Amino acid sequence: MDRFYDNFNLWLPSPLQKINFSNNKGISVFVKRDDLIHHDISGNKFRKLKYNIKEFYRQNKKQIIAFGGAFSNLLYTLSLMCRQMNIPAIFYIRGDGFDNNNPTLRYIKSNGVKMVFMSRTAFRNIRNSEFLEKLQLQYPDAYIIPEGGSNSFAVPGSAEILDEILEQMNEVPDYIVMDLGTGGTFAGVLSKIPENIKLIGISAIKGVDWYNTLKKIYDGEDKLLKKQNWDIIEDYHFGGFARFDDALIDFINNYKSKYGILLEPVYSGKMVFGIHELINKDYFEKGSKLVWIHGGGLQGIYGFNYLHGERIWL
Amino acid sequence: MDRFYDNFNLWLPSPLQKINFSNNKGISVFVKRDDLIHHDISGNKFRKLKYNIKEFYRQNKKQIIAFGGAFSNLLYTLSLMCRQMNIPAIFYIRGDGFDNNNPTLRYIKSNGVKMVFMSRTAFRNIRNSEFLEKLQLQYPDAYIIPEGGSNSFAVPGSAEILDEILEQMNEVPDYIVMDLGTGGTFAGVLSKIPENIKLIGISAIKGVDWYNTLKKIYDGEDKLLKKQNWDIIEDYHFGGFARFDDALIDFINNYKSKYGILLEPVYSGKMVFGIHELINKDYFEKGSKLVWIHGGGLQGIYGFNYLHGERIWL
Repeated sequence: MDRFYDNFNLWLPSPLQKINFSNNKGISVFVKRDDLIHHDISGNKFRKLKYNIKEFYRQNKKQIIAFGGAFSNLLYTLSLMCRQMNIPAIFYIRGDGFDNNNPTLRYIKSNGVKMVFMSRTAFRNIRNSEFLEKLQLQYPDAYIIPEGGSNSFAVPGSAEILDEILEQMNEVPDYIVMDLGTGGTFAGVLSKIPENIKLIGISAIKGVDWYNTLKKIYDGEDKLLKKQNWDIIEDYHFGGFARFDDALIDFINNYKSKYGILLEPVYSGKMVFGIHELINKDYFEKGSKLVWIHGGGLQGIYGFNYLHGERIWL
Repeated sequence: MDRFYDNFNLWLPSPLQKINFSNNKGISVFVKRDDLIHHDISGNKFRKLKYNIKEFYRQNKKQIIAFGGAFSNLLYTLSLMCRQMNIPAIFYIRGDGFDNNNPTLRYIKSNGVKMVFMSRTAFRNIRNSEFLEKLQLQYPDAYIIPEGGSNSFAVPGSAEILDEILEQMNEVPDYIVMDLGTGGTFAGVLSKIPENIKLIGISAIKGVDWYNTLKKIYDGEDKLLKKQNWDIIEDYHFGGFARFDDALIDFINNYKSKYGILLEPVYSGKMVFGIHELINKDYFEKGSKLVWIHGGGLQGIYGFNYLHGERIWL
């Protein structure tokens, strides 16, 4: 694994930042800056890919296959990693075809990845085990990474966030708050969360059966899900994946001016919006210490502004 | 001053990052990440403005006047600070007039600053004391900040970088390397540099009389300039202020992929290019420890790409 670190010059452990958050509830707020691990290697993607890449080498595979939308953080990150490690890669991308105005696709192309475009209907198959088995038969030397990188190998890498936080904090935090997309990073932290910390997930997606999604990431095991000190909140998805309204955009722009930290509208913006609402609603105990994890994915803003006009100030 | 910090949620002390820099000279490289102090409050501008703002309040002035080019980091930073502190501001800007496609000017406008545009010829006067005295008579309640924020009040704020570095490093570094534009941040670090550290400045501008520029920042004193342990290198300005070539742009794009850190082409890109060349040329002693200061100013990339096409990968 040292080879992996050396190749990418990752900033690990990622820094922990205290936010000067003034409120009348005495809540202290810290941010785990996984967005700073590397400019192009999105923090939570690195955590999820770390042991997947190790497994790729252990299985002695020769290429990587992955899946994602046309603005995918996973594909963005993985394209650079594959280039740096000289691993041939094929990405199956949901969408009509290559679009040179899409900054994510342009970056993936610049890293020399082969792209195959799939219709929305066909893309749904990638969550189907039969489809994946056929693909594996077609490419026996390929290591296949699921959408968002959320498989059982995502768990140990993501759990390391917790070790770092506990080492960096002077006291044990009361809450750790994370966003959820495909659930892999959350599953990792949940796997090792101590009893005296409550883990809160804020879903970026509407109507997900989180219990079964997490169980699947744990290879069908559900003993970790029997822990009592975790919760997933589904009130801040703003209508569903990548949906938004003006209140969310204003929140993100104001947050940057006020706290100096950039959020993106798909995951972290919704989570931090949720945290502020939950503080107002006295969801968190007075005087408690809260750490939220900034998982990165800021490249998504370029795609978002490309689709919707310049809505988020860079 | 606490009020100042509270308003801006600055990340101080800014983090120090070790770079995994493999070379056969045994040189260790660290970066002082002043670019992370705040997303919009450029690191070295904050250092220079800190005691200027204190002086603004001490003198009980009512508005701020400042100067800069149409892509100025100082004006960008100061516009947000003035908005947050409700200080009316007038910026004298070198250029033809307001251009809504210029991201720096658009941001300054959004922060409610009054802008006055000056021709290049007229703008040269702002370095003239007679012009400044007349302006002060015209606006007796204004606190006037010179170009780049480099006056004697920039010195104590910039010197604090050194205190932070010495506290964050386990051992005393052998070299501290900085870029120079108007010289204020360099003057600050030079004012307190201990004898056992060598301070290296890499000039972003061609043909500057640095001795007299620094002497002016020290209010005409030159005793600090008699120190022996500093040097300014003028080999990496790439033709002059804001000039560039393809080698510089490639270096910046590759640096981001390889080391995960974004540089801009006007100051930090030239400095780090210079550092790598100087390492190759054995300018630095083998086995030494080097810290370079990332002063921020990354907003300049948007202006640069606007002027020259998308040359730097974001």
